[in-house]
Parts: sequence; structure tokens; C-alpha cells
Amino acid sequence: MFKKPVLIIQPEICKKNISKMIDKAKEFDLQFRPHFKTHQSVKIANWFREKGVNKITVSSVSMARYFINDNWKDITIAFPFNINETIDINKISSDISINLVVESEFTLKYLVNNLIKYCGIYIKINTGYNRTGLEINDYYNIDKLINRIASSKNLEFKGFLTHAGDAYSAKNQVEILTIGENIRKELSFLKMKYINQFPELIISYGDTPSTSLMNDFTGIDEIRPGNFVFYDSMQLMLQTCKFNQIAIALVCPVVSINKKRNEVVIYGGAVHLSKEYIPTGDGLKNFGLISKLNNDYWSEPIENTFIKSLSQEHGIIQTDEINFKNFNIGDFVAVIPVHICLTANLMGEYFTFSGEKLDHFSKYHLHSL
Amino acid sequence: MFKKPVLIIQPEICKKNISKMIDKAKEFDLQFRPHFKTHQSVKIANWFREKGVNKITVSSVSMARYFINDNWKDITIAFPFNINETIDINKISSDISINLVVESEFTLKYLVNNLIKYCGIYIKINTGYNRTGLEINDYYNIDKLINRIASSKNLEFKGFLTHAGDAYSAKNQVEILTIGENIRKELSFLKMKYINQFPELIISYGDTPSTSLMNDFTGIDEIRPGNFVFYDSMQLMLQTCKFNQIAIALVCPVVSINKKRNEVVIYGGAVHLSKEYIPTGDGLKNFGLISKLNNDYWSEPIENTFIKSLSQEHGIIQTDEINFKNFNIGDFVAVIPVHICLTANLMGEYFTFSGEKLDHFSKYHLHSL
Repeated sequence: MFKKPVLIIQPEICKKNISKMIDKAKEFDLQFRPHFKTHQSVKIANWFREKGVNKITVSSVSMARYFINDNWKDITIAFPFNINETIDINKISSDISINLVVESEFTLKYLVNNLIKYCGIYIKINTGYNRTGLEINDYYNIDKLINRIASSKNLEFKGFLTHAGDAYSAKNQVEILTIGENIRKELSFLKMKYINQFPELIISYGDTPSTSLMNDFTGIDEIRPGNFVFYDSMQLMLQTCKFNQIAIALVCPVVSINKKRNEVVIYGGAVHLSKEYIPTGDGLKNFGLISKLNNDYWSEPIENTFIKSLSQEHGIIQTDEINFKNFNIGDFVAVIPVHICLTANLMGEYFTFSGEKLDHFSKYHLHSL
Repeated sequence: MFKKPVLIIQPEICKKNISKMIDKAKEFDLQFRPHFKTHQSVKIANWFREKGVNKITVSSVSMARYFINDNWKDITIAFPFNINETIDINKISSDISINLVVESEFTLKYLVNNLIKYCGIYIKINTGYNRTGLEINDYYNIDKLINRIASSKNLEFKGFLTHAGDAYSAKNQVEILTIGENIRKELSFLKMKYINQFPELIISYGDTPSTSLMNDFTGIDEIRPGNFVFYDSMQLMLQTCKFNQIAIALVCPVVSINKKRNEVVIYGGAVHLSKEYIPTGDGLKNFGLISKLNNDYWSEPIENTFIKSLSQEHGIIQTDEINFKNFNIGDFVAVIPVHICLTANLMGEYFTFSGEKLDHFSKYHLHSL
């Protein structure tokens, strides 16, 4: 069935992951706006739609257009708005609800002057990840933005949006829960401060690690996890999923084995997996766990075995003497990617074990000037 | 002209790089078989063809087919042959010369039994990079492979192929030249051992860093550099090119600025640049140098300024107080990628400053089962 690196998805696991997160959102009375930047697929998006999801998150204007073409009508573009794409937003039909994310007065001024389409606006709040966003207690600048939004007929202040990206630097469940709980408290405080003025205010909260684990969402109104649809080696390491929740693997052929070094070389490199890695305790890098491939599933990861380096098309698997004996040239192994969002983007399509092909935005969209 | 991340190529610089390497090959009487895995573009390939190049290297069977479709007829697939793709090799027309790379008896046996098409065979030699290949003095196994090749009517022993990938771990010109010279001596010795038996024997030698710098190729018959067509931040750091030889940059819009941290956030992340980085002296990672973008060129890199982290769509630029003042939201900057092969693969197409679009294999090829 296989010849070269192929990204294989198990739809049943994927659908279970979706249902579980939907149930969690319901349990805690949260609006569910899953981030589609992980799968970027209209076919997978339909699995959400079938379960009643109709609000989504994307990470770029072009990704929004990809899903609008498939009839999604309520989209948050969770990225500091790029004013150079205002013209693309203006072209979006009035029956589509678009929310933009803003954190600077300059961008907001530009929108006030140039946006024709009616859009919701979230103010991006930095909760410690230090990538983008206003500080959570920077009321002076928050108020300035809110007032500027109020001055425009085309903009509507929706609330505050944050991404607990620092959860990815945690080492285990406890650390993730601590980070999540601290952010939740701060967000609750922010909400209390503005809720009287804006009774419809939404506190929108992101990331798979903390939403997978947290059991108190008081003060949060909406969650936007994305990775949970597939999970990956990073999530497994963070203890935010079990192995049997991982819905996707890169199938790769073995092309070379080296007995002296207990190393196995696969056709499967940085152009398939991305160079995302998990630092191992002993100074090495783990670019992916390795599982035995069976007819229609993959086994638990093989012990003491991982991709230790990647070049453009090659991956070098390090293993031990015992497991080495099970690798043979021509065989296929299943690689559990470290960061599935990047791997899926590189592969550009998915296949099921039964050979069905699923789309990914990256192959169906050409960068244009 | 720009809206979002776009990969911009300067054809004149590219063509100069091509001419320079052709001249170098001629000067040292070397067969020139450039590696097309860097550009992966039939349009750029034509710039080589116009200058008389007709032998090429690729890194996968599917990439070979991409160039065969554009009438390239002499191709080395410089990757340990994946036996699962034998069927694809058998489909290639008899007027196309294909060389395969082999390092294992198992693979060779498989080829002897299953290959219908007539192919040249290179034996892969490990010269210290420790990825694939037989040890250079492992005459026992080398002879075994040679004898096995001789036993087949469809296979012809062409010579030895090596890739000085360890040159990439060098810190400067002197280290690269030392690595290159040591490998050259060993290859000369290998050649002397087999040249009487195989007077047509070819010693094929790879990598841009050492071929860009070396001035003694005695014992080497063929060079296969790839990266030199564009060069990148990594090559600049290795001192294998000057800045004005870099032919390509990723143009990205600024979407956020943070005065307190002297940080600038661009729309341009791991899905555009790849996560390849250069370790800085002080424990940070450099994911790309930053240049000022002008109408039809980019400036020398801005001092004390580089991408310090990348997430899926965001890049965070770290700069100093003085340079920070020159960044404005909505502006475009030119990022000089760390590893252009990976960036080009991700972007999937190129544009010139005048708006011409050039193809890349990754967008024009769908992974299939």
C-alpha cells in the first residue's frame, strides 16, 4: 500500500477527540471555537460540523477564506491583524461573521479608516507567553483601544483573547495546571472589571494543553484548542493526552540500517516532519517517536527509540540493541510527530488506512502577491 | 505589491552563482552535477540548462520524475535507494539515464531481482557525517557490493558517492577546508585502489560549503553542490558566501511591535521559514537575519537583529533600541532564511520583484499512496 512518506490519519480517534472536547466545553458551559490551524482541512472540519460546531478559529486571512469557501460563517482570525490584508477582509460577504484580533492603536486606527466590512474585534492580551498582546493590567491602553473601537461604525468590541502558549514550556500536568489556573484568575479579574460596561463580553482562551487538563474555567467564556484533534509526541510528553488519543502518524520506509551505531535511517526528513524537537534529558533531541506499523493501526512507541536527527529527506532513528533487530530495510514504521500542526502543513494531505484522501489548506492554496 | 509572506528571488544573483560554480567545475576539470533539491524548480533548472548543464542530482524518486517531465535526461538520485519505489524506476523511459545510490547488500539484491530498467549504481561512502554509507576503508563490503552489481545485467557500477555533511558543523572557512581536504585525501586513496579495475570510475562529492571554498579537488571527478544557487544565513555564517551572493529572501509584514522588549513580531513563522536555526554564542537561537526591504533589493542584515523564536505563523524579531525605531506596523522586512532548501519547500513557489512566478516541486506534486 505504501511507497514513501505518507501522513496517515485514524478518523475514529479523531472524531472521539472532537466529541470529548465538545463534551468538555458543554460541561463547563463554554463556547467552543476550535482552532482549525492544526488540521486545516475542510473534510476534517466537516467532522466538527456534524457534531454541531459552527464557530471556528483560524490563524490567517487566507485560511479564513479557505473555510469560507466551504460555507463556514463565523470565524475568528486569531493573529494580530495584518493591515496589508484589509482589502481581503473587505471582500468577505456580509453574511459571514469575522472577528479580528488587535493589540495596537496603529492597527486599530488603520481599520477605523479603511475597513468597510463589519467585524468583531478582540483585544489580544499577553498572559506571560510574551509573544503579542497588551499586558493584562494595562488598563490605560486597553481603554484607549476600546474607545477607538467604539468610535467606529464597522467595529464591535467583542472581548479579550489570549493564548496560554507558555503551557508548552511546562514539564508535566501539574505545571500546566498551575499556569492555566494563574491565567484563569487574572482573566476573571479582567472580566469583572469590564463586564458591567460590556455585558456580552467574551473571554476567549486558547491552547490544547491547558484546556485538555483544566477543570475550572470560571471567568472564561470561550475555548479555542486546536491540536487536540490529532495530538502528537509533544502533547504525550506534556501528559495532556494518552497514546491511544493520537490520531495521526507519518508512515516512512526504512532505507538504511547501521548495526554498529544501532541506527536506522528512514526516508522521512525535515520536509516531511519539520524540525520541531523535544529535548531529551541527556542533551539529545527527539524529532519523533517510533511505532510499529500494523495493518490498520500503530503500536505504542518502541522503547528507547526516537528520531535523533533530521536532514532534508533523511531521519536517523536511534534505538537499542534489542529493538534494532526488528528494523529491516524496506519495512515501514510509524513516526509520531513532535508538532503535528507543522507536519500536516508540510505533507499537505492526509490518507486513511483505507486509502481515502483528505485535503489540507497548504496544498490547495498558492501563495500569491 | 506585497500582502503576506512571499519568497522573493533575484534571478541575476542566482544566475551569477550558477555561472561561478560552473566556472569552478571547469577550472578543476570536474563533472558538474548540481543538486536540484535546493530550488526544485523547472524554471530555475532552465537557467542551468541555458549554461550547458545537463546532468543533475535530486533527492527523491518523485523529484526525479518532476524533472524528467521537463526533459532532463541524466539524473542521480542521491539518497539510499528506497526499494518500495522500484516500480517507479522501472516505469522510467530507457532514454533517461538514472543513477541510484546503494549502500546495503539487501537493497542491491532486491534491485538485482526486481529492477527492469538499466541503471547506474553509486556506492554510498560515509566520510564522517555518520548518516549513511559504508566506511571508506570497508573494502570487504565494498567489494561484495561491486561483485553483486557485476552479477546483474541491469546494473552498472559507476563509482563512489559521498556527502561532506559534517562541513555544516564547522565554524569557519578553515574548519570547512580542513574537513574537505581530509575527505579529499581519503577519496583519492579509494580511487587509486579501484581505478585500474574500473577506469571509468567516478568519485562524486557533494555539499556547498566545501565545494564553494576548496581549491584542490585532486581525486574527485564530480561535484554535486545545491545550496549555492541561493545561499542563506547558514552559508553566510560558515563564510562560504558573501552577503551579495544571497539570491533569496522571505518578505514578511510587521504585525506587532513591543517597545519594552525591543521586539518586533512578523507574519512569518515555522510554516514559512522552517524551524532550522543557528545557535548564537549566548544560548539563543537565530531563525533568520533581517534586512531592510527596498524596491528591488534588500540591504545588508540589520545589526543586532534576528528572529529569536518562531511559532506556527509568528516570528519574533529581537533587535536593539536604535534599530527598533525603524520598524513600523504594516512595513515589510526581508528575512534571510537559515536553511533555504527548507524555506523554499515550505513556500512552494517563488516570485521575482517584477512579479514573475516560478514553480517549486512541493506545490506541484501531491503525495500519493
